[in-house]
Formats: sequence, C-alpha cells, structure tokens
Amino acid sequence: MTSAEAAQAAQRGAVLVLPVGAVEQHGPALPLGTDTIRAEAVVDRLVDALDELVVVGPTVPVGVSPHHLAFPGTMTLRPATFAAVLTDYVDSLARHGWRRVLVVTGHGGNNATLGVVAQDVLRDHPEVELAWAPVTPLAPDALGAMNRAEVTGHCGEAETAQMLHLAPDLVRSDRLAAGTTVPGQLDPFARLSRGAAHPAVALPYDRLSASGVLGDPTSATAEDGRAVVDEVVRRLADFVREWSTT
Amino acid sequence: MTSAEAAQAAQRGAVLVLPVGAVEQHGPALPLGTDTIRAEAVVDRLVDALDELVVVGPTVPVGVSPHHLAFPGTMTLRPATFAAVLTDYVDSLARHGWRRVLVVTGHGGNNATLGVVAQDVLRDHPEVELAWAPVTPLAPDALGAMNRAEVTGHCGEAETAQMLHLAPDLVRSDRLAAGTTVPGQLDPFARLSRGAAHPAVALPYDRLSASGVLGDPTSATAEDGRAVVDEVVRRLADFVREWSTT
Amino acid sequence: MTSAEAAQAAQRGAVLVLPVGAVEQHGPALPLGTDTIRAEAVVDRLVDALDELVVVGPTVPVGVSPHHLAFPGTMTLRPATFAAVLTDYVDSLARHGWRRVLVVTGHGGNNATLGVVAQDVLRDHPEVELAWAPVTPLAPDALGAMNRAEVTGHCGEAETAQMLHLAPDLVRSDRLAAGTTVPGQLDPFARLSRGAAHPAVALPYDRLSASGVLGDPTSATAEDGRAVVDEVVRRLADFVREWSTT
Amino acid sequence: MTSAEAAQAAQRGAVLVLPVGAVEQHGPALPLGTDTIRAEAVVDRLVDALDELVVVGPTVPVGVSPHHLAFPGTMTLRPATFAAVLTDYVDSLARHGWRRVLVVTGHGGNNATLGVVAQDVLRDHPEVELAWAPVTPLAPDALGAMNRAEVTGHCGEAETAQMLHLAPDLVRSDRLAAGTTVPGQLDPFARLSRGAAHPAVALPYDRLSASGVLGDPTSATAEDGRAVVDEVVRRLADFVREWSTT
Amino acid sequence: MTSAEAAQAAQRGAVLVLPVGAVEQHGPALPLGTDTIRAEAVVDRLVDALDELVVVGPTVPVGVSPHHLAFPGTMTLRPATFAAVLTDYVDSLARHGWRRVLVVTGHGGNNATLGVVAQDVLRDHPEVELAWAPVTPLAPDALGAMNRAEVTGHCGEAETAQMLHLAPDLVRSDRLAAGTTVPGQLDPFARLSRGAAHPAVALPYDRLSASGVLGDPTSATAEDGRAVVDEVVRRLADFVREWSTT
Amino acid sequence: MTSAEAAQAAQRGAVLVLPVGAVEQHGPALPLGTDTIRAEAVVDRLVDALDELVVVGPTVPVGVSPHHLAFPGTMTLRPATFAAVLTDYVDSLARHGWRRVLVVTGHGGNNATLGVVAQDVLRDHPEVELAWAPVTPLAPDALGAMNRAEVTGHCGEAETAQMLHLAPDLVRSDRLAAGTTVPGQLDPFARLSRGAAHPAVALPYDRLSASGVLGDPTSATAEDGRAVVDEVVRRLADFVREWSTT
Repeated sequence: MTSAEAAQAAQRGAVLVLPVGAVEQHGPALPLGTDTIRAEAVVDRLVDALDELVVVGPTVPVGVSPHHLAFPGTMTLRPATFAAVLTDYVDSLARHGWRRVLVVTGHGGNNATLGVVAQDVLRDHPEVELAWAPVTPLAPDALGAMNRAEVTGHCGEAETAQMLHLAPDLVRSDRLAAGTTVPGQLDPFARLSRGAAHPAVALPYDRLSASGVLGDPTSATAEDGRAVVDEVVRRLADFVREWSTT
Repeated sequence: MTSAEAAQAAQRGAVLVLPVGAVEQHGPALPLGTDTIRAEAVVDRLVDALDELVVVGPTVPVGVSPHHLAFPGTMTLRPATFAAVLTDYVDSLARHGWRRVLVVTGHGGNNATLGVVAQDVLRDHPEVELAWAPVTPLAPDALGAMNRAEVTGHCGEAETAQMLHLAPDLVRSDRLAAGTTVPGQLDPFARLSRGAAHPAVALPYDRLSASGVLGDPTSATAEDGRAVVDEVVRRLADFVREWSTT
Repeated sequence: MTSAEAAQAAQRGAVLVLPVGAVEQHGPALPLGTDTIRAEAVVDRLVDALDELVVVGPTVPVGVSPHHLAFPGTMTLRPATFAAVLTDYVDSLARHGWRRVLVVTGHGGNNATLGVVAQDVLRDHPEVELAWAPVTPLAPDALGAMNRAEVTGHCGEAETAQMLHLAPDLVRSDRLAAGTTVPGQLDPFARLSRGAAHPAVALPYDRLSASGVLGDPTSATAEDGRAVVDEVVRRLADFVREWSTT
Repeated sequence: MTSAEAAQAAQRGAVLVLPVGAVEQHGPALPLGTDTIRAEAVVDRLVDALDELVVVGPTVPVGVSPHHLAFPGTMTLRPATFAAVLTDYVDSLARHGWRRVLVVTGHGGNNATLGVVAQDVLRDHPEVELAWAPVTPLAPDALGAMNRAEVTGHCGEAETAQMLHLAPDLVRSDRLAAGTTVPGQLDPFARLSRGAAHPAVALPYDRLSASGVLGDPTSATAEDGRAVVDEVVRRLADFVREWSTT
Repeated sequence: MTSAEAAQAAQRGAVLVLPVGAVEQHGPALPLGTDTIRAEAVVDRLVDALDELVVVGPTVPVGVSPHHLAFPGTMTLRPATFAAVLTDYVDSLARHGWRRVLVVTGHGGNNATLGVVAQDVLRDHPEVELAWAPVTPLAPDALGAMNRAEVTGHCGEAETAQMLHLAPDLVRSDRLAAGTTVPGQLDPFARLSRGAAHPAVALPYDRLSASGVLGDPTSATAEDGRAVVDEVVRRLADFVREWSTT
Repeated sequence: MTSAEAAQAAQRGAVLVLPVGAVEQHGPALPLGTDTIRAEAVVDRLVDALDELVVVGPTVPVGVSPHHLAFPGTMTLRPATFAAVLTDYVDSLARHGWRRVLVVTGHGGNNATLGVVAQDVLRDHPEVELAWAPVTPLAPDALGAMNRAEVTGHCGEAETAQMLHLAPDLVRSDRLAAGTTVPGQLDPFARLSRGAAHPAVALPYDRLSASGVLGDPTSATAEDGRAVVDEVVRRLADFVREWSTT
C-alpha cells in the first residue's frame, strides 16, 4: 500500500486492523510466536472476507508476557511500553483521518493493557473509535464442540488446534504432551483463581505448569482449529460490517 | 493501627485489603462517591467476617473514569497515575514484609489498570501475591434473583440497591429514574458492544445514556442490595480464608 | 453530592478543598493515619464554618514519606506519583469549571511536592488558583502557648494534642513517651539542620529518634489540641472568605 | 523456534538479530513498509549466510518518522517509545543469557534513537554487546557504481533498486518518477544541510520534496538492487563472524 | 580538575557544591542570569574560604521559572526535568564515592523541586547526604540592616545590591526603578498570600508587578550587597566545616 | 542581557546558540570539563564573528557519558534527561518567538540524543528550526593537516591541541601521554567497530584504553588547536550567515 492508497482508504472510512501477539514460551511443541501467527492469520482471513472495508496495519509482535519470563525465549514489553506503541499508532492514524481501529490480539496477556489504551484513546482521541478482540474467546461455539481438559488454556487444545490448521509446519507434533489438566496439579494459590465470581490473580506460569502447557494438546486436530478460526473470523467480520454502517 | 501493630500483622501473614473506587457521575440520584462507598462498605464487612486475617489499607478514592468526564463532578486519574499509586503502595508494603494484597474495586473502570498493575507486580515484586476483585460481579446469584432491565449497569438496579442498603441517606430516592433500558436507546456503535463473544469497545457515557444511568433504578430495593453485598462478602471471605492457608 | 450538585457548586465559584495526609509511623501511641485524620478533621470544621463557600473533594490518604520507611506500617508515594494524583485532580476539576482549589495537608513531607504541583498547575492550568496549607504551622499562637520540648515535631506535643482533641479513641495514651527532646540526642548531621538561616537537609527518621517521636507527647492535652485546631480553622476560613470575594 | 531451542541458541552464543524499519510515505511507487521489507530481507539473507551463528528476533515494523508525518500513511513511534521497545527487548534477552544483539534498520530515521538505546544498554546491561547497522550505507561500493542524481536518498535510486530486487511485485513501476534531484529544488534551509562538515538539521520531508522522493528512481534496476543487498549482507556477515570469535 | 584529582577529592570526603540558578526576567535593569551569577559567585567565595573541604561541580544554569514565563527571555525547566538533572548528578557522584552534596540555589523557584530531589535521594541513595540552601535568605542579619520596601523580593533591594557588589557591569543602573512596593499594588489574590501563617499560593509574576520587580532597587548599594554575600558565605562555610567533622 | 533585550533579539530573528558539553574523564592531563570548555570557547568566537546575528543561551555543562562512568569524575545525564533539558529550553524559547536554535556540542556522546531532540522538536515545535553541530568534526581540513595516530579520538591530538590553544593553563602538559594508538591495543570487539561501512557499537571506554586516552596527545600543539578552532568557527559562521538570510 502506498501513501496515496492509504489516504484513499482512510477517506472511505475503512477499519484499520492491527494484529498484536506475543513472543513467549508455548511449551515444547509450539513456536514462541504462536500468538502473533494466529493473530496475523485471523486478520488475513478477515481481509479476505471484507475486502475494502478493512486495511491491515503493522503487527505488534511482542506483547505483555511477564508471567512467562521464567521460560527461555520469552520476550516481553512492559505494559507501559506496549500501551505507548499503540497510542503512538493511534496518534499517527488519527492525524491522517482514520476513525476506526480494531486490534486483534492472539495473546490474552495483552488484554488489560488494551483496556487501558482504550481509556487513554477515549480521552486523547475522542474522534477515534477503538475496538479490540482476543482470538480464541471469539469462538465459543467451536470451543464448546471440542474435547478439552478440565484445566486448559495456554498451549492447550484450542491453541494447538489453531496452529495445526494455520501453520502445521511449525508444530512439533511429536513433542505435544499434556501439561496441567486437572486443578490438583496447580499450586494452591493458582487453584484459588479458578471458577466463576472470584477475585482475579496474576501468576507466573511456572506455578501453573512445569512444561508451560495448560490442557492436553495431543487431542487437538486441525479440523478443530479450522472451526475456531472460522468462527472468530465470522464474528469479527459481522462486527466490522455493522460498524461500517454506523 | 500503630506502627508496631502493622509490623505484627505483616508478620502473621495477614491479607492487606485496599478499597478502590471512583468519583464520577452516578446519575441524578446517587452520590459521586458511590463506588468508593460500596468498596469501603464491603471491605468493612469483610473485616467483620475475618477479623485478624485481614487488615484494611488506605482507600484510593478516585479511579479511572475518562468515560464519564462529560458529566460534571467526575474526577479521573490517568491509568498510569492510578497504576503508580498502587505499585507505590505495593513497594511500601513489600518492604515491610506484606505478602498478600487484595484490592476491592467498586468501579469497573479500574479493572484494566488493575490487571496491568498485577503484571507489573508479578515482575517487580514476585514475592507478593496480588488479587483484585470487583464488587457487583461477585454476586451472580443475587443479581440473577433481581429484576433488571435488558440494558443495565452503571447507576442501575444493582448499584442503586447496594446504596439503598449501605447508605440510604445518600440516595435521592425522589430523583431515581430509568435511564437507558433497551438497546434501541443506545447509539449504534454502543449497541455493537453488547452481547457475548464480540470485540470490546470503550465509549463515553454520553453515548450510552443522556442521564448517565443504565437500567431502571426505581425498581431497586434495599433488600436486593443486602443480598448482593452479603454474597460479595461471603465469596471474598471464602477466598481469603483459603488463601491464608496456602 | 450528585453530579448536578457538583455542577452548581463549581458554577457558584466554591472553593474545592482537598485533604491530604500520610500513612506513616507515628510512634508507639498514635495511629499510622494521624496526618490524614487531622487533615480531614480540619476540613470538616472548615465546611462547618463556611458552608456553601467550600466543597470537600476526595482525600489523598497516602503522602510522601520516604523518611519514615525504616519504620513498619509506613507507606509512601513517590513524589512524582503524589504530584500526578493532584495534577490529575486539577485536570478533572478545571474541565468542569472549578477555579479555586485549596489543599490542606496534615503531613509536612508533602509540602515540597505541593510546591511543585503548584508550579505545574501555574503552567498547565493558568485559569485555576491553587493554594495549599499545612495544619500545625497555621496555629502559631496556640503553639506559642503550649509547653513544648526544645526538639519537637513529628508525634510531639502539638500533633498528639490535636489527636487527643480530634480522635481520643485512637490514641494509646498509656504508650505515650518522650522521644528526642534535646539536640544532643540527634545524630550530628541531624543537629546541623536545626536553627534559622541554614541549609536544609532531608534525613531518615531513624537518625532523628529511635522511637520515631520528636518532643514529649506526654505533656499534650486535648485542650491544647482544640486551641490548635480552632486557630487553624479560623485562619483557613478567613483566607477562603477573602479569596471568595476576589 | 520453541522455548527450548531459544535456550540452546542463547547458550551457544548466537547473535540475536532484530530487523527494524518504518511505515512511512515512500513516494507514489513504493509501499509504506519499504524500510521494514528491506530490513527483513537483509536479515533473511544474513541467516542464510550464517546459519546457527544468528537467530532472528521479532521485527519492529514502525520506526521514528516524524519528518514524514505530513504524508498520508506515515506512522511513527515517538523516539522514547521506540527506545522503550528495544530496551524492553534487551531486558528480556539479557535475562535468558543472550549477550550479542544486532539491530538492522532499514530506516535512517531510527539511527539517533538506536544510538541512545545503545548508551542506555551500556549502562543498564553492561553484559550485553549491542551493534546496530543501517542497510543502504553498508554498500558503499555498490552505491558508488550506481548512477544517482546529485540529490538522492529517500525513495531514490538505491532504495528503489533494492525493492525491484527484493519485492518487485510491490513496486508500482509505472508511477516511478523523479523527485528532487538538484539542490535548487530544495527550500533554502534544506539546502544548508547538505555537504560535508556542516551542522546537522532535521527537516519535514515536504520541505525537501513535494512527492516525498529524493533522487530519480526511474533509473534504478533490480541488478543494482542485488548488488546493494549482496554487499550489505556480505559486510554484516563478516562482522558477525568476527564478533562470534571474540 | 582531572579524573585522578576528582577521585582523590571524593576519597578525602570533600563536599561537592552545585550552584543552581535561573534564566528569567529580572526587570529592566538586571540580567536574565542574575540568580545563576549570584549562586556561582557565592560558591566561588565558599571555595576561597574552605579550600580543600569543597569541590565545585557543574552549574545548573536554568531553573524552575514557570511563574516568569509571561516575560521575554525567561527559560524554564519543568520541575521533573530539573529534578532529573540533579538526581542524575547524584547518581554519578554516588558511583564514585561522593557522600556529601550541597546545592546552592540563587533562585527561590527551585526550592520546592530541591525538596523533592532530597526525598528521592533519601530513598535511592541513602548513602549520600544532601543539603541545599538558598542565597538571600541565608543573610537575615544583613537583610535586617537594609532599607527595604514593604513588598520586596524578586529584583528588589537585596538582589540588586548583590549584583551591584558581584557584577556591577551587568547592572543597568539607569534603568533601576521601583516596582511593586506596597500591598495595594498587588492583585487581590496575590495580596492574600502575604503575611505569616497563611496558605501558600503560586502566582504568575505579571499579577504581582507589571515590570517584574518587587521592591525598590534604586535604594540598593554595593555595600549592602557585600554584607549579604559575606553573611551567606560565612553561614555556609560554618555549616560545611561542621558537616565535614561528622 | 535583560528581558527587554532578549525580546528584541528574538524579534530580529537572531540565532540562539546553546553550548553543550560533558563532565567526564579526559585522561591524566586534561580537565573533566574539556568538552564544555571547548564548546563555550567556540561559541564565544562565533559571537565575535557574527555579532547581532547570534545570542548565546545557557550552557548544558553535563552531557551523555555513560561510556566513561568507569573513570572517576565522570558525570552523566541519562539521554532522556539530556533530551528533556533541551526540549524544555526549546519550549521556553519558542514561546518568546525564537525560531532558530543552534546547539554546539563539544562531546560526541551527545550526538545521538541531539538527533532525537531534533525529531521531537520537529513534531512539537514545527515553527522552530534546530541545527546542531559537533566541534572537532567541523574542521576536516585542519585535522587532515595534523599528525595523528592510527587510533585517535577522545583526549587525543585534536582535543589536546584545542585545549592548548584555548585553555593552556588547564592542561597538565607533563602528564600528557600516548594512550591507545594502534588497533592491536583495543579489545577485539572494540576493534570490530573501526573502519567504514560497518555496524556501529557502543563500548565502555575502559575497553578502549586503560588511561582513557585514544591517540598520542604529546604531539599536539597550540597552533594545531588554533587551526581547528578557526576552521570550526568559520564553518559555523558561514552556516549561520546563510541561515539568517532564509
């Protein structure tokens, strides 16, 4: 996309979509960039579905991952840095007339900072509408149809399934192995943070799982992954289409 | 509490509980400090229930409320300031041996920043366990039993009920009036943010409701409020009791 | 106070009064929150005296107390955090038309940062007039009438007297004991900082007094405290009344 | 690359290579991401040349481009944000034992901030050796062999040639057109900044060229581009090989 | 002073003296750098008096002067910048073994920030003793002996007298003229801030005096100036001598 | 210069010149302030040459010198602090109508931060033209005529020659001694950073030279120094004259 094309896209009211992810441990079988890969793939498919309604902006490949720092390969931005990157992006975009920005995050650890960014944008750029969406939680139907362990999450069934669908070459299938799958394997304080209607807690991942894996990724299939991705893309596309008419 | 008593409490492993709230518009009938009042009241009852297991720390009375700034009386900290206050608190507490901190927030607008604070604490004070909890969402059972409008929330049935129970003198009952109660009254982008499994958005409250009220507070009763508060306190007390044994 | 009432108060030119204090060691007999308690009490009496001329804003309960960190229970904001809280307050207030803000600080350790805040407000909100006042130093007459040790100050005669008047239940009178009362008990560098027309120094309190007390609080009476508080309130009220006519 | 593989690479002393670029106007014919594309391509070829001596880290796709903000599509990080991203990267890498980091920047506007980052790393991570390199200036021989206008640079012969070699599909060859090619076309202050041994100045690009182009890209060939890229990669590879023996 | 000589001075426990001043309007007759000139002159004389007990560090020539910004020629650091300069100085000095630092400020507008710096140093460099002193207020005896207007201060009798003694060539004596000399000439809010035991306020200087002058400098003599400087130097020298024995 | 004179100078479009330097080790023979002394001396001569076209602003005497911190006497600002000082200066100057600012730095370690400052000024004060210049590199002809070692630089022939010309009393000529003069004396990584068209690196000076000296200052003469200074001043004067006509 050239400068002139960007000007036209902004003028026609396109939604600027920013994929954000993480570089962090993803167990023995998945690549460090799993979250970024999934976010970018979802955004690519969203573009296929929506064409000129959206434009893809630059990825933020490293996210907020202090809870994984005990594991090699993990890189993290401080939340303040991650927020500064996004607010600098919005500053630039607002200057050129963009009014709708959608952030798609492949990494749940970015959610809190994205919430903060949205509050700062609300104040400093009231003319910009910012929406942000995680990937996996946008597929409740597909998730419901999968077979998942009682404890599941990071590097688990859903994440592995998505990678088997989106980037099978990057999955070391022979190293897939169940991690923490039942509450009893968690340390006591970690157990406390499970269940509905309780206080939230932040925990380093080495207190959750020795291998960094929550759930049993060996049961994941590429088909499951396709179902998740399809549902996520469909929901995002519906959202953007409606947004574009407001 | 004197200096020596604080030393003893830290040493016996007590949980330090910090009430945080907001000073922001609460419609025509509720006081600006509604969220702080509810947080402090819940914490007071928690102390009654748990005695020496907890110690109450200083309140943060102003929270993150940029979305209410269009309404007079609203005060807000920038998210970075709110985070700095809490990390400074944790710095001080950690230095004196406190290892468990629970933040109780009466204001949902603080949630994102609390999530960020937790990530920073994880990195800079790995020896401290931080948990944080909203008030109203900790009472799913009591909420389920109440009669609430399709659109509800800020200054709505649940919040008003709590105030009728906790601080009836501060409620101008004659000014209670339904605000936005059905999606059709929201502006189109605001409508988009409703429902499950969709992107999150941040919106200024004047796009949600002309009076700043979501829901119909005229139906709220002090009894409902008591049920909400009781459930919140019970869940928090259970959490702290278990925590204290880890 | 509701949103609408706040709008009216701002419009009629009321002075917004902010009590700020500290959570820090106050020797064996006084509570950690002594400075906040005194600031809030003075402000309450000021409201009684001035009625609609003033409105009370949210307290900043924790102040700048790095010099007390050696003593358990002390919490401190970094000066930059304390300043950010107050400038965020002023930002919010200025937006809604407040033009006069008075900060009443129960803690001398906040003075320097308040001076800095005032300079930043001067630059960033020239439309706002900010005044700030300590508590005890506003009662020179009452202090002159009291019997005080040669070295006196934190937790000493004047502070204890105020607490005996304002919150006698929170004073452990049986633990009141003289702290450092003569210069010879100070460490040599601390001694240097005494007297008029000399350089200023900042010292950790454990170099000033083993118990954290300067002066002999055993001689303090509630009557003395009443005289101090009355004089402080009278001077503040005079100031606000005159201010309100400008 | 998985967590375990990252651990091995750090342990064997591999150089971590970070491509950084820009999203900014590149005239009517080149894409906004030209600098990032070239940096990533160079790094890819470096990996081909060096194999296990290097590992590629996450790209920083948006750089420091305030001088291009007058042109649509330009995004910029503030220098402080760009610096924070890189120091956060180094913080994470240092924690896991990386000792050599090479930043390859496709965008000259990042140079000053990279210099600052290096000074901060020197102080805060003396155990890490940081090197940083631009792309085009590392090919003095190939540049000398090209036919370039008297005024040349951004979007000019060398940059266009690289893109014709690396990503010909992204070059709108029919829109290539000469920009500012002789000093007389610059505004007077911009002219002042040319030549050796003079003060440096920073100028917005609209004072340098109406189209955002310096030089005449119509004369650029893919062959020239290959020569530039080959020389850059060769010099970087030599550097890394020597470094790896120290 | 060379690197080796600095090492020796630090080792023998010398006091590092930092002159700080301001660049701000000083009325029609005094130079913008008046405060810096006075601070440096006092420090020079202090060195003459104390020889090896002190070493002069680099001047901070621009201070905190937002209240003078309405007048041309005024430059100001934000308080946070001024504080950062001094804490960076102390960081460097502490690293090389300096344990005593004395800041001499010719500008009262720096006092609040110096107080904040001292609190930060107390926390981050407990091994360093920091003292700071204004110039004019260290000469109460000489001031008492001078003839000064009821309202006096900036560019007034005392400041002008010092300049007539220290740098007579820089004083445009023919332009000396009385500024604000009685309270009635102040604006009403400015008047409020006068007198003992009242709240402090910060005011822009154009509300205090049209010419930027407080007091009547026409009555100032070089002799008065000498008396002020001599007393200041004597008091500082006594302080440093005692300090050096602790 | 008084306030009124500053107003006139700004109005007539004078260039504001800011000397910046460093306080850092300069080997056994040169003073810590060598870079500041040279910058100020060059600026003084520039004023002599240009008269009313320029006005000298306040010096920044301490620069960015983390690479010299291993040597006693070195003081450094963090790059962010150094940048803040200069942007605060520009903020103040812009407010009073200054449109041209020239920074002359005697210390190469400031260059990167000056580049960053220029980018921030470009964005925040587009009405101000900022130029910045090092000292020694502005004399390529004089340098070419000098006899210099293969490795040369800090405290070497050129710097010493300038000091012999500008401030001979401050040079301990008897302690002048060759430092690192050939690449073989550098540590291997330091060697890597030499030569054209290679990546840049930042290194602590103790890895470059045990005495902190690069080159052989014993061969320097005051005459060489005069030639360097004359050329620098001539080039700067030409630049300013041309600038003043734009």
